Amino acid sequence: MVSIEEALALVNQQEVKGTPDELPLAQSLGCCLSKQIQSPFDLPSFDNSAMDGYAVCGLTSQFEIVGEVAAGNTSKNELSEGQAMRIFTGGKVPENTTAVIMQEKVRVEGTALILEEKVVEGKNVRKRGTEIAEGQVVFEEGHRVTPATVGVLSSLGFGSVTAYQQPVIHVIATGNELVEPGEEKESGQIYESNSQTLATALQDQGFYCGSRQKIADDLDVIAEGIDENLEQCDVLLITGGISVGDYDYVKEALEENDVEEIFYKVFQKPGKPLYFGRRENQFVFALPGNPASSLTCFYVYVLPLLQKLSGGAGNGLMRVNLPMAHDYEIKFDRPVFLKAQIEEKKVSILDGQGSSMIHSMAQGNALAFVKGPIQITEGDPIECLLI
Amino acid sequence: MVSIEEALALVNQQEVKGTPDELPLAQSLGCCLSKQIQSPFDLPSFDNSAMDGYAVCGLTSQFEIVGEVAAGNTSKNELSEGQAMRIFTGGKVPENTTAVIMQEKVRVEGTALILEEKVVEGKNVRKRGTEIAEGQVVFEEGHRVTPATVGVLSSLGFGSVTAYQQPVIHVIATGNELVEPGEEKESGQIYESNSQTLATALQDQGFYCGSRQKIADDLDVIAEGIDENLEQCDVLLITGGISVGDYDYVKEALEENDVEEIFYKVFQKPGKPLYFGRRENQFVFALPGNPASSLTCFYVYVLPLLQKLSGGAGNGLMRVNLPMAHDYEIKFDRPVFLKAQIEEKKVSILDGQGSSMIHSMAQGNALAFVKGPIQITEGDPIECLLI
Repeated sequence: MVSIEEALALVNQQEVKGTPDELPLAQSLGCCLSKQIQSPFDLPSFDNSAMDGYAVCGLTSQFEIVGEVAAGNTSKNELSEGQAMRIFTGGKVPENTTAVIMQEKVRVEGTALILEEKVVEGKNVRKRGTEIAEGQVVFEEGHRVTPATVGVLSSLGFGSVTAYQQPVIHVIATGNELVEPGEEKESGQIYESNSQTLATALQDQGFYCGSRQKIADDLDVIAEGIDENLEQCDVLLITGGISVGDYDYVKEALEENDVEEIFYKVFQKPGKPLYFGRRENQFVFALPGNPASSLTCFYVYVLPLLQKLSGGAGNGLMRVNLPMAHDYEIKFDRPVFLKAQIEEKKVSILDGQGSSMIHSMAQGNALAFVKGPIQITEGDPIECLLI
Repeated sequence: MVSIEEALALVNQQEVKGTPDELPLAQSLGCCLSKQIQSPFDLPSFDNSAMDGYAVCGLTSQFEIVGEVAAGNTSKNELSEGQAMRIFTGGKVPENTTAVIMQEKVRVEGTALILEEKVVEGKNVRKRGTEIAEGQVVFEEGHRVTPATVGVLSSLGFGSVTAYQQPVIHVIATGNELVEPGEEKESGQIYESNSQTLATALQDQGFYCGSRQKIADDLDVIAEGIDENLEQCDVLLITGGISVGDYDYVKEALEENDVEEIFYKVFQKPGKPLYFGRRENQFVFALPGNPASSLTCFYVYVLPLLQKLSGGAGNGLMRVNLPMAHDYEIKFDRPVFLKAQIEEKKVSILDGQGSSMIHSMAQGNALAFVKGPIQITEGDPIECLLI
């Protein structure tokens, strides 16, 4: 049995090697760059106006309007002392521009421009290269592409990027008691929910479930299923069959497939019977069969590994400290992930904390983490993992 | 000009009518349920064991083992006083079971089961219906489907759900200065980035950009473009052309298309020249052309509307208060959304706060919101919108 900190460290220590791939910028959301990106040019790439107004040359209060620069005008304009040009936001300022004067601060009489404020050198001019200079490192290797990243890379003219491929992930649910939703079930059987839950959680976190499968509690069948899946995937998630019951064959089946145990059992609630193993560059998590335990272990342990495998930092869900909305007491002596709801900036611990109870998790938006035993008072900060 | 609060209230006041659609559970992530869901049966649907161990009948310390119940065993088992059965987690407890004893707390000698702890009535038995009772409301209309929701609905045997359709969203970028990434550009021109940024932001938030288009600064062309797009979409996002320059035709073109202004200009930084309008059940946001302003307005105003249109509450990004990692001062008198990075549970305000500067936004993961002028000290709480 390891502690949560030890388990997370063991996940984080895994050395992984991503495979770079070129893909269209439009398809790169959530992927991590496989190499540093340098700017091919200055951004902005020319001095331009921050306002709708007039570009002026000189420091006097009256100018002669000699023309106009609209946004997108590519002709080369030039001002002499005492001259001004109409200009619009983003327009390229003429040569010799001292400043741009906002249109709200001028009077126009024929071709005469009369200022209602003093010319301040450089005012309302966005200088070439002030956001990004040519050659500057814009993003480091490993940067995860967000919508704003797409904005920057588009601005720099990139139509595609080189990013790490996402890992191929398969899911196996074990258990003789499992029946597919939609089918008839008898008393003693339950609908299989873990594989679809994990597939959706993968999707929600920007990954993709390549295959999901239901397998009976039989050592040979499980071992064969693991073998077949490991031929095709980078990460295999198995639910159930990892406890200490006579029919829990997963651990044995993994050993038969040369998967080496990295850890088994974590001192936590829920999700104690969690297994993590590796065979060369493939990883296996055997998650508890209880729905809430399985999904909690996914968020806490599987997600950081997937983020690492896709070239990122592997930080998992964002963690913040937020104030409790009410008192709460934990009597037992174990670190616990509690289903929680953040509302109006405060944290409420939800009813239905049992390992099998996923309904409360569906009502919430966070996992609160504390170490029991503890008496928490309303207003106290509590660590939350944001789902 | 309206305040941020007024603008958000005007977005939230819009009455919208969603269209329900049946879709496979596997495709429902992020959608909002169009009707309440009641449980078709008790969950768990039979009394079952919370542990691997022995179901016993009676309160004595020794029992006779008469059989076994594996998980998924559907036969009807029954115990008499003094009898016990081997049982595994999730297995259906036999009739007359007093409690389940953990296997770690027993000794087995032949068919004799000797307990090392007292029998406590009901212990380790998960009673039928304790998570969800038959007929109980499991999710209300408007509930947004998360991975855990998929878990609950799978457990209840649902293979599909009835949810509101997502709105059809189109994007138009206006500006003569715009060139597509990948093409050649001349000095005075810039690469168009807003439409791709917004398309990616839509994807990131679970929506889909049905069309994106670049249009020149020409009143007739813009009016025609708006007309064509409004024939096909529920929400039209336009970037640029909404300021007060001579070539800013968007507002006029919207009027020509019978779009009614709900608000124009918000007292904020960035994103002052923001327009919101409606034509019957269609909505138009004209966003500022500056990349950071455009994306900020998307997160603050567009997202809540899209969430409402898809049947949800329209709360926008999650807002929390987190401590500042450093001092910060704002001298001007305007509410401001600052590009920020949350790291190790603290907020850093990033360099590069200009309206055109989206690079800093790509380095961050939040928008911090404050009302200037203000002097913020390290450790002070600051409101953050989590991107």
